[in-house]
Amino acid sequence: MATVKLLDDAEADTIPTVKAVFDDIRAVRKSDFVNNFWRGLANDPALLKRTWEGLKAVMMTEGALDPLVREMIYIAVSTANGCTYCVHSHTAAAKAKGMTDAQHGELLAVIGLAGQTNHLVTAMQIPVDPQFDLTGR
Amino acid sequence: MATVKLLDDAEADTIPTVKAVFDDIRAVRKSDFVNNFWRGLANDPALLKRTWEGLKAVMMTEGALDPLVREMIYIAVSTANGCTYCVHSHTAAAKAKGMTDAQHGELLAVIGLAGQTNHLVTAMQIPVDPQFDLTGR
Amino acid sequence: MATVKLLDDAEADTIPTVKAVFDDIRAVRKSDFVNNFWRGLANDPALLKRTWEGLKAVMMTEGALDPLVREMIYIAVSTANGCTYCVHSHTAAAKAKGMTDAQHGELLAVIGLAGQTNHLVTAMQIPVDPQFDLTGR
Amino acid sequence: MATVKLLDDAEADTIPTVKAVFDDIRAVRKSDFVNNFWRGLANDPALLKRTWEGLKAVMMTEGALDPLVREMIYIAVSTANGCTYCVHSHTAAAKAKGMTDAQHGELLAVIGLAGQTNHLVTAMQIPVDPQFDLTGR
Amino acid sequence: MATVKLLDDAEADTIPTVKAVFDDIRAVRKSDFVNNFWRGLANDPALLKRTWEGLKAVMMTEGALDPLVREMIYIAVSTANGCTYCVHSHTAAAKAKGMTDAQHGELLAVIGLAGQTNHLVTAMQIPVDPQFDLTGR
Amino acid sequence: MATVKLLDDAEADTIPTVKAVFDDIRAVRKSDFVNNFWRGLANDPALLKRTWEGLKAVMMTEGALDPLVREMIYIAVSTANGCTYCVHSHTAAAKAKGMTDAQHGELLAVIGLAGQTNHLVTAMQIPVDPQFDLTGR
Repeated sequence: MATVKLLDDAEADTIPTVKAVFDDIRAVRKSDFVNNFWRGLANDPALLKRTWEGLKAVMMTEGALDPLVREMIYIAVSTANGCTYCVHSHTAAAKAKGMTDAQHGELLAVIGLAGQTNHLVTAMQIPVDPQFDLTGR
Repeated sequence: MATVKLLDDAEADTIPTVKAVFDDIRAVRKSDFVNNFWRGLANDPALLKRTWEGLKAVMMTEGALDPLVREMIYIAVSTANGCTYCVHSHTAAAKAKGMTDAQHGELLAVIGLAGQTNHLVTAMQIPVDPQFDLTGR
Repeated sequence: MATVKLLDDAEADTIPTVKAVFDDIRAVRKSDFVNNFWRGLANDPALLKRTWEGLKAVMMTEGALDPLVREMIYIAVSTANGCTYCVHSHTAAAKAKGMTDAQHGELLAVIGLAGQTNHLVTAMQIPVDPQFDLTGR
Repeated sequence: MATVKLLDDAEADTIPTVKAVFDDIRAVRKSDFVNNFWRGLANDPALLKRTWEGLKAVMMTEGALDPLVREMIYIAVSTANGCTYCVHSHTAAAKAKGMTDAQHGELLAVIGLAGQTNHLVTAMQIPVDPQFDLTGR
Repeated sequence: MATVKLLDDAEADTIPTVKAVFDDIRAVRKSDFVNNFWRGLANDPALLKRTWEGLKAVMMTEGALDPLVREMIYIAVSTANGCTYCVHSHTAAAKAKGMTDAQHGELLAVIGLAGQTNHLVTAMQIPVDPQFDLTGR
Repeated sequence: MATVKLLDDAEADTIPTVKAVFDDIRAVRKSDFVNNFWRGLANDPALLKRTWEGLKAVMMTEGALDPLVREMIYIAVSTANGCTYCVHSHTAAAKAKGMTDAQHGELLAVIGLAGQTNHLVTAMQIPVDPQFDLTGR
């Protein structure tokens, strides 16, 4: 149960911006599958288009970080934010990009450790050491 | 201002468990610097020891993930949890492990995008697509 | 599956404070429907009464903000806190108060943008500009 | 720097509701000190009064939980929510109610462990065991 | 202290994309002031440009929601996410768009109430009432 | 649906570290029931072992806090973090340790109040009163 309608393909095809984005999703991913996130965003075609363009720019361009590393960072943020759908979708994406069980296990271990020390630091209200300032200012 | 005392070296030296952990931190890091997090945890020597052993096991062992990648995952979790100290300390650690400005920029971009889509997904309460189930069960 | 019993009407009728609050909910809302949140709180009649009185004072009085605007603010907070039930119940309430699809789409866009920039700001630990201080102190 | 004015005593004395609440805070706490939280809320006298009445009902009545235990629960929530002011004010309150260093250390250890396992559970999306349902429904 | 350099105008002027965005910020806002958020993002000109374009699309276009309402929603999300900088900057923006003290007080009251009921709902794990499903599916 | 396999007993028995931990869980708890959290962690035997050892050290040792109090603190953190599984499992654990309905109600009331005031404080950005500094430094 969602708070918005999830547009099926018949509905999507009637809205040119939505059709164009769905076509692009399929072309870029080389798959006919368009997941529910995009079907929900399709209620607001401009938001759908901006979000998809943003995702392509951040996750699907050549860059300094390996695509799998980007997915693992995504999982880390989604976990801390408690986003069930996002944890599932990006874990699936990471596995599709080759994440091994060993890498998944280490990812979980780092996420858990960070969760622990984040809480300890906040409960103790530890002041930032001046040595951590590396901005050159 | 912290909610606990930050033990200085003179105080730390009077508690054998604390002294042993501080000595190990210095030996492992090849640096005399012991940051405030450990000085706060030192009020509870058993907690200090467990936390340090956990950190070594997760962050400082050979494994399937590059040490820099682990630091970036740590930054991602710490950001989503709003932990100022942790963002600073692990950004400094990532830079010490060679994180370039380009990598830092991409890390920020992924963290920001995940923050955005996490919120969109939760506001729409998107149901998980069955295609994301890859556990084989 | 909840961690508390959800009191049905027969049980509610046996506890005077609960019955009085349920009657008031029905009278104020002009509907026989009492949603699960109140049925859970009914296990602690004093907490039920305080929470309902608080909700009436904040959400159901004449004031400086339109009732629909208050519901949209409620959705925004509930989204950031990851409260599934709250997102559903207040989206339904906003729709009942006339939220259009266009308004819903813009609400989602603002929530998503805020999620993104909140994460970017925290990851960069941006210091507050003194120009933002408008308290006159 | 706050987003609202913090009313000093001279300003508070000119608003009857605010003066009455501040007088009650001083009487109940047997101290002349009114902390900044109430001085900020005083900009909205009705909100100030409701919040203070709520706090008295929850934190200052005889009940099934020891007052110190309530403060420790408050610290736990405030830590997970990343509320610096709240962590400081309720740690001070807990110490004033007799929290020992050993109790504080154990509180921190539980908070840290919960932070860790919360993150692990969310990253793995563990389904709830049916054995945990004890509501009798 | 930030984790990135905050580019001053002299540095910004040497990077065409950054200069163009800063010029646009000044033109759109009719003010010479460029706040620190943009100066931090300027380290990654593409991220700066995308973020600014996104902000203009969501916050500065004609639409179904009043610009002040959008700022209040922004404050609500930023509060729940614990983003100090964002709370300050968007409270200043809301005041610049005419938010009165009465509106600010009601905004705070709704944010506080939502925070309370979000926590109560989550602690009780209240199941969603089927009546809240208004998607027509 | 989890992002990892939940190991059943037959699988667990083939991995010595996993078998040893499961045996210890059963011995310590005097119950044959091993809940899903441990079955998920079992994919990474070292993480399983560290997490179980950490839990025993924090939750199952003699100390300054009553075991039931520790469970209530755990529930408080898990609620603020929005961890459904954790709220369920630790509410069940608290009930098994004797938490009464009255105690549960008060726990909920404190969690709700803290959620409310955490949000109010953050939205107002209240500065910490110097009187709260009790560290002696």
